[in-house]
Amino acid sequence: MQQVLDASKPSDWRATDPDNTLYVDLPAGRVVIELAPAFAPLHAANIKTMVREHYFDGLAILRVQDNFVTQWGDPDTDQPDKARPLGKASKTLAAEFERAITKDLPFTRLPDGDVYASEVGFTNGMPAARDPKTGKTWLAHCYGMFGVGRDNGAETGSGAELYVVIGHAPRQLDRNIAVVGRVVRGMELLSALPRGTGALGFYEKPEQRLAIKSVRLAAEVPAAERTPLEILRTDTPTFMALVESRRNRSDDWYKVPAGRIDLCNVPIPVRAPREQSTR
Amino acid sequence: MQQVLDASKPSDWRATDPDNTLYVDLPAGRVVIELAPAFAPLHAANIKTMVREHYFDGLAILRVQDNFVTQWGDPDTDQPDKARPLGKASKTLAAEFERAITKDLPFTRLPDGDVYASEVGFTNGMPAARDPKTGKTWLAHCYGMFGVGRDNGAETGSGAELYVVIGHAPRQLDRNIAVVGRVVRGMELLSALPRGTGALGFYEKPEQRLAIKSVRLAAEVPAAERTPLEILRTDTPTFMALVESRRNRSDDWYKVPAGRIDLCNVPIPVRAPREQSTR
Repeated sequence: MQQVLDASKPSDWRATDPDNTLYVDLPAGRVVIELAPAFAPLHAANIKTMVREHYFDGLAILRVQDNFVTQWGDPDTDQPDKARPLGKASKTLAAEFERAITKDLPFTRLPDGDVYASEVGFTNGMPAARDPKTGKTWLAHCYGMFGVGRDNGAETGSGAELYVVIGHAPRQLDRNIAVVGRVVRGMELLSALPRGTGALGFYEKPEQRLAIKSVRLAAEVPAAERTPLEILRTDTPTFMALVESRRNRSDDWYKVPAGRIDLCNVPIPVRAPREQSTR
Repeated sequence: MQQVLDASKPSDWRATDPDNTLYVDLPAGRVVIELAPAFAPLHAANIKTMVREHYFDGLAILRVQDNFVTQWGDPDTDQPDKARPLGKASKTLAAEFERAITKDLPFTRLPDGDVYASEVGFTNGMPAARDPKTGKTWLAHCYGMFGVGRDNGAETGSGAELYVVIGHAPRQLDRNIAVVGRVVRGMELLSALPRGTGALGFYEKPEQRLAIKSVRLAAEVPAAERTPLEILRTDTPTFMALVESRRNRSDDWYKVPAGRIDLCNVPIPVRAPREQSTR
């Protein structure tokens, strides 16, 4: 894999878009999330509205369920007199669990099939699945994917409760929830947290919760405080060479190359063009 | 799923076998591992030899690689004059990466296929794959599976370096390494550890390593200090009902049941017949 990356061209990479990148600043460091407005435009826009209003600042990580998700939001969301108001953001949104396959949406298909969907691959650096029969596509719940919690109603999500997958891909969630992006740096700040001991991994005591310092749109952060990153384009021959290098490992350690790969085992390389001294 | 478990019969469960159960006692608590001697008999026996000689006591967790493995062993293994001797245990073992399919080995096949193998299912409570063409079967690298680290040579593993999967199933390891069991309790003690910042997730400083208090065979621990557990038998109608309940979630939250499930998304229920007051 490293050989493939070493041979990559500058044009194989794209910089993250500051207007579609979130910084979740925790006491231990920064989580960088790339949004996927092509799949959940209303949810991405609503989250950006909340972020611009600093909605998440001082809220907390409420839930860490082993082999499943880390989730954050307002601890007082169920108490109307204490819950933080959503400001200009909508309290509920139309369900954006899948969208139409269109020509302008790139799709690099993987060759080895999938247990859950008829086709899987990558769209703009995000793991995606498709069903040509229905003409629909959706983002897949792989490790590091970022979604919008909701109650039982399909239209009850707003973006005020957000989660990241920290375990084996819970693909049963696909098409049941709005997936709105992917963590591109800092996963270990979410995956290595103490697991909650309450039902569904919620922390049982307020003091167990981890405070969120701030969530910001990269575009609203001074340039010197940003975390510039580049993502390998998933519609390039370089990316396909990388997939092939993972399907058939050529190093001496492997005795039986798998010859296959499943969607959520494909790494999507991220690099820093220059590390910031401020972080 | 809870309804299925509530309706289970006592005979649907089996107690863990003290002669095939390891207790990894860490400062924060106990990890319980069920061994799989049917798949890697030499490796299981060698580990038990080391455990009986208290080989692992005072050694350490050396490596925590995000979305991959937590690994422990002797920090000084590369320094012959300081490395802890293996005593009666073998320094190397024949490769046990797959074994023959035989009639005495139960196999509950899953209906939804697999990206990596022609058949997948469960054997004695362990996720397993099979290839009827070669007549071979092997354990699958799902979350919580327990394996034996090795160097580049296929026969270089002894059990002195052990790992547990803490991320999305790294199925490319299947048939490349001896898988010798599964964590049945205490995964959060291995999955929530700080990630190592060195290459492959190794801790860079000795003080970052987490000390192992002891590793014991359950049979060698006084009865009052054991952690009795029961595992749902995977060759029962109750288990198949559980699989079906996970393939098609019936609760109100799910809008689109997956209708399918992949091997590593199937939970293998574990329960405590009575919790010990000593832990």
